[in-house]
Amino acid sequence: MPENTGLGLLKRLVVGRPIPTERALHERFSRVTGLAVLSSDCLSSVAYSIEEVLRVLVIGGLAALSFGVPIAALIAALLAIVVFSYRQTIYAYPKGGGAYIVAKENLGVYAGLAAASALFIDYTLTVAVSVAAGVAAITSAFPALRPFTVELGLGFVFLLMVGNLRGLREAGRIFSVPTYFFVFAILGLVFAGLWKVVTGGVHPIVTDTPLHTAGTSALTTFMLLTAFSNGCSAMTGVEAISDGVPAFRPPESKHAAQTLVLMGSLAITLILGLAYLASAFHVVPSESETVLSQLARGVFEGRGVPYFLLQAATTMILVLAANTAYADFPRLASIVARDGYVPRQFMNQGDRLAFSNGIFLLTTAAAALLVIFRGDAHKLIPLYMIGVFLSFTLSQTGMVLRWRHLRGLGWRSSAAINGLGAVVSACVLVVVAVTKAPEGAWIILVLIPCLTAVFLTTRRHYSHVAKQLTLKGWEPEVRRKNTVLVPIGGLHRAVVEALQYARTLSTDVRAVFVDNNPAATEQLRRDWDQWGQGIPLVVLESPYRSLLEPLLAYIREIDDASPDDYVTVILPEFVPARWWQHLLHNQSALLIKGALLFRRNTVVTSVPFHLVK
Amino acid sequence: MPENTGLGLLKRLVVGRPIPTERALHERFSRVTGLAVLSSDCLSSVAYSIEEVLRVLVIGGLAALSFGVPIAALIAALLAIVVFSYRQTIYAYPKGGGAYIVAKENLGVYAGLAAASALFIDYTLTVAVSVAAGVAAITSAFPALRPFTVELGLGFVFLLMVGNLRGLREAGRIFSVPTYFFVFAILGLVFAGLWKVVTGGVHPIVTDTPLHTAGTSALTTFMLLTAFSNGCSAMTGVEAISDGVPAFRPPESKHAAQTLVLMGSLAITLILGLAYLASAFHVVPSESETVLSQLARGVFEGRGVPYFLLQAATTMILVLAANTAYADFPRLASIVARDGYVPRQFMNQGDRLAFSNGIFLLTTAAAALLVIFRGDAHKLIPLYMIGVFLSFTLSQTGMVLRWRHLRGLGWRSSAAINGLGAVVSACVLVVVAVTKAPEGAWIILVLIPCLTAVFLTTRRHYSHVAKQLTLKGWEPEVRRKNTVLVPIGGLHRAVVEALQYARTLSTDVRAVFVDNNPAATEQLRRDWDQWGQGIPLVVLESPYRSLLEPLLAYIREIDDASPDDYVTVILPEFVPARWWQHLLHNQSALLIKGALLFRRNTVVTSVPFHLVK
Repeated sequence: MPENTGLGLLKRLVVGRPIPTERALHERFSRVTGLAVLSSDCLSSVAYSIEEVLRVLVIGGLAALSFGVPIAALIAALLAIVVFSYRQTIYAYPKGGGAYIVAKENLGVYAGLAAASALFIDYTLTVAVSVAAGVAAITSAFPALRPFTVELGLGFVFLLMVGNLRGLREAGRIFSVPTYFFVFAILGLVFAGLWKVVTGGVHPIVTDTPLHTAGTSALTTFMLLTAFSNGCSAMTGVEAISDGVPAFRPPESKHAAQTLVLMGSLAITLILGLAYLASAFHVVPSESETVLSQLARGVFEGRGVPYFLLQAATTMILVLAANTAYADFPRLASIVARDGYVPRQFMNQGDRLAFSNGIFLLTTAAAALLVIFRGDAHKLIPLYMIGVFLSFTLSQTGMVLRWRHLRGLGWRSSAAINGLGAVVSACVLVVVAVTKAPEGAWIILVLIPCLTAVFLTTRRHYSHVAKQLTLKGWEPEVRRKNTVLVPIGGLHRAVVEALQYARTLSTDVRAVFVDNNPAATEQLRRDWDQWGQGIPLVVLESPYRSLLEPLLAYIREIDDASPDDYVTVILPEFVPARWWQHLLHNQSALLIKGALLFRRNTVVTSVPFHLVK
Repeated sequence: MPENTGLGLLKRLVVGRPIPTERALHERFSRVTGLAVLSSDCLSSVAYSIEEVLRVLVIGGLAALSFGVPIAALIAALLAIVVFSYRQTIYAYPKGGGAYIVAKENLGVYAGLAAASALFIDYTLTVAVSVAAGVAAITSAFPALRPFTVELGLGFVFLLMVGNLRGLREAGRIFSVPTYFFVFAILGLVFAGLWKVVTGGVHPIVTDTPLHTAGTSALTTFMLLTAFSNGCSAMTGVEAISDGVPAFRPPESKHAAQTLVLMGSLAITLILGLAYLASAFHVVPSESETVLSQLARGVFEGRGVPYFLLQAATTMILVLAANTAYADFPRLASIVARDGYVPRQFMNQGDRLAFSNGIFLLTTAAAALLVIFRGDAHKLIPLYMIGVFLSFTLSQTGMVLRWRHLRGLGWRSSAAINGLGAVVSACVLVVVAVTKAPEGAWIILVLIPCLTAVFLTTRRHYSHVAKQLTLKGWEPEVRRKNTVLVPIGGLHRAVVEALQYARTLSTDVRAVFVDNNPAATEQLRRDWDQWGQGIPLVVLESPYRSLLEPLLAYIREIDDASPDDYVTVILPEFVPARWWQHLLHNQSALLIKGALLFRRNTVVTSVPFHLVK
């Protein structure tokens, strides 16, 4: 893209300057930056997962809310298991062990593509859910902004897109602050809350707008399972670090594994702390305010500075959690594209190390979800967990088979760890599918096989193409002659320049004019001596006033006479100075190009004529 | 478009076979057909204009409805004046005297373009309003269809588009039946109603759903003027015949003038008859049923065969009234395009005498209006009259100046007739603008100058282009040399064929490869002896991993060395067998084309490689 065009300038402004290959290593993450960028998804989900548990429990009445803490403990235990499973994956796959690679290598192509489908869907939902929840934190603090929920969400998605198009390193820097800010803010909330509990300063938190479903039904086992499924949204994002191992500075695996364990410990602490506080302060989920906002009001005694700091930290980490997906979606697309299952354009790295096509696709899909679901996180979360736990299950099962296959030192204990992860993930997957399918997650159950089919079709097409392109055993046909035709509608500079150009190409150049009006034809014949440059002028009759049919018939004629030679059609093409002027030109050229696109041995060339205004 | 492609076949199916020039005269209208096609707009508007008057009057209570008949009489008188004004236009402009031509010739370009803007807007609204009112007749008869109002409207617009793309003569035939059917049905209703009045068989008509605004306010002068403005919707479409004079068989003017007077007499009869009946039968406008439907129920005593025949006739003429616009919009676009104010593609006649681009544009705009206004004629009508009366006023004023300028035999009385028409139209224009602007017609007041500005800008651009294209005093630069570059990413059949083609173009052909990977470069060099056809291979370094920048730099180099010669870039282009495969190919080619589009003396040629599956 040349710098001097408008588009080139725009690209530079949005994407930044190119980075030479040798600088790429310095773009890598330290542990501190890596934790910030890759763990924001996982850590931030504690902001909504406890709330999603309580929103189901409260249907069974206020007493049922006491199940919140045991469910949180169960989720914390599962999280620990999954973290240790993925820790092994990081060491086994130092080049990035996403579920796609692990499943494909150990379980076969279909499992790999199912995992890839699940991951693409989940990265998209990560963006949508995190942004929606981040906006909910804002509207809890400033209820006047509620009508602008969707607009705020779209604004954040746009900022994320621009940030990521500009490259990784800046992203790391910008995104370190809010992650740590959030972790310390929540820890502060938890310790302040515990201090109140210990010193006996607890007052139940009052909400004006309790959920209208509260106490409408008795607590059933199915509701408990649904609450647990909702809570599992806290486990999203665990795999991000294992996908992104090569983004760490060397030694990549060690740095990544340490980061993963640190992330898991933090997440467990936050989940248990918040669940306990919600129970101790008798929080009831509300229509208009998040549970976290209520807790902050209760613990910090009203909407003071600490309250607003916590809400700000929550919004920031949630919006930036979407960044995990922005780091991983394009990388996964690139890996799958290298195998030929998604279009090649996802394989090209942009000149700023970011994969712009993947970023654009992710942005479009997430923005569409925000618009369709009106920015409501509660409606998006049911779609979320199936993909997460499907990829967990496939990835961990793949690891078990890998250990069995390699049979290295201590492979049994390694396989046992991953086996436990696989079994636990599979159980959660079944619970989630059963409880969430009626709430809309059936879409995901349909979408995953559909995407897999699309991937397979793409790959099959590329294989067919490769066969058609192979040089092995192929003998090129010999074509020497090139008949060059210049269809003209009159005589002007662009036509004369096209004729000049045509003369450089072949000794057999013919100008072709369709006779619609005998007077115009006569005029053209008179002017031809001066401007025709010795090129023969062919005049075609047109009984139906069509310009195209006689030209096509003439080309067929030439082609029939020497079917193995080329016909080149030269068209003058106006290149306007302003974009809207495109609407005013080149309509006939477009028609001719469309009509000739499918002809064998026919080449259409546009000779640009640059308009200055 | 070749017959053997899918698109060509589709076009033939929708548009029909081409018609040779010599058959065009037989496509012309007789008076009977002309009345049917060109007066359906004017005649059909009686179906809603009385209703629009009563809907305003009823706000002042049931007694205020008695103003309906005097208002209808006033509108009938105005209609007579306008008809006689336009009768003169028909004789003065036998080649078609639309407001655009009359205003441009006599009042100047700006007035002409304002008239053209008004007409384009009104043709679009004619389609939308008529179709909406036609659908209202259906839903009055079959209330169960009300939820499908928009879908029905869009269906009718689509049918109109297809009918008009297939050409004039069939349109004339199809559309004769409903116009006459409607005229006789309404005349039947009026006479049956009068018979009841004379024989004393009148029972007031009861509606279950009177308008919720009924009797909410005292009757004000402003309301009377608003009611009158609404009634003026009956005058839309009067100009259609004078626009379409050349579509009549010779003697065109005489046939057109006779048709116009007949149309005016019929319209006046229907308006007065319906207004009187509505008053005699005490019809109160309803939320869910048209006034015409209520009248038919009352006069024909319930929903029997005569009632359904009348509703069918109403729907048919209303939907087909839109056909006036389909006849005139593309014709006007073609005339304005000939003057260079709208893009040239509106000037091309399709090969079936119909102006397909204008038809498509009109269809899109009308369909958008139907969707935006949810198919509600009452909401569309306020937008309708400003354009109509602006074009009346400009056209009649233009005629007055014309008479004064020509000073032929009896010019004073001719000028007086058009002068009366102009004054009356101007007064109505002011009333309509004042009463309707708050109801949304301000959009039209803004749109007309905007469109005019667009027309002027288009014309200015075409003038600039003509100056840049003129051969007068121009000496073409001599360019002889043509350096042909073939950028390649590897070696396969499509590349080899592109190289073969390149060899026919020039003696200076070079293959260009960007080195991203030393191993791939080495492999390419080894294979080059066998497949390179003696063409030199240029390998470019790429410090930033970009494929484009090194290529552009190389072209700049060649260009700097001989700035007056050509550089031709040959790209192999995949032509896939199925449409979705386009997404999987040619991305880099597109990038290169985009980057080179604005370079001087640089021509990009795609050599198609046809994929078979």
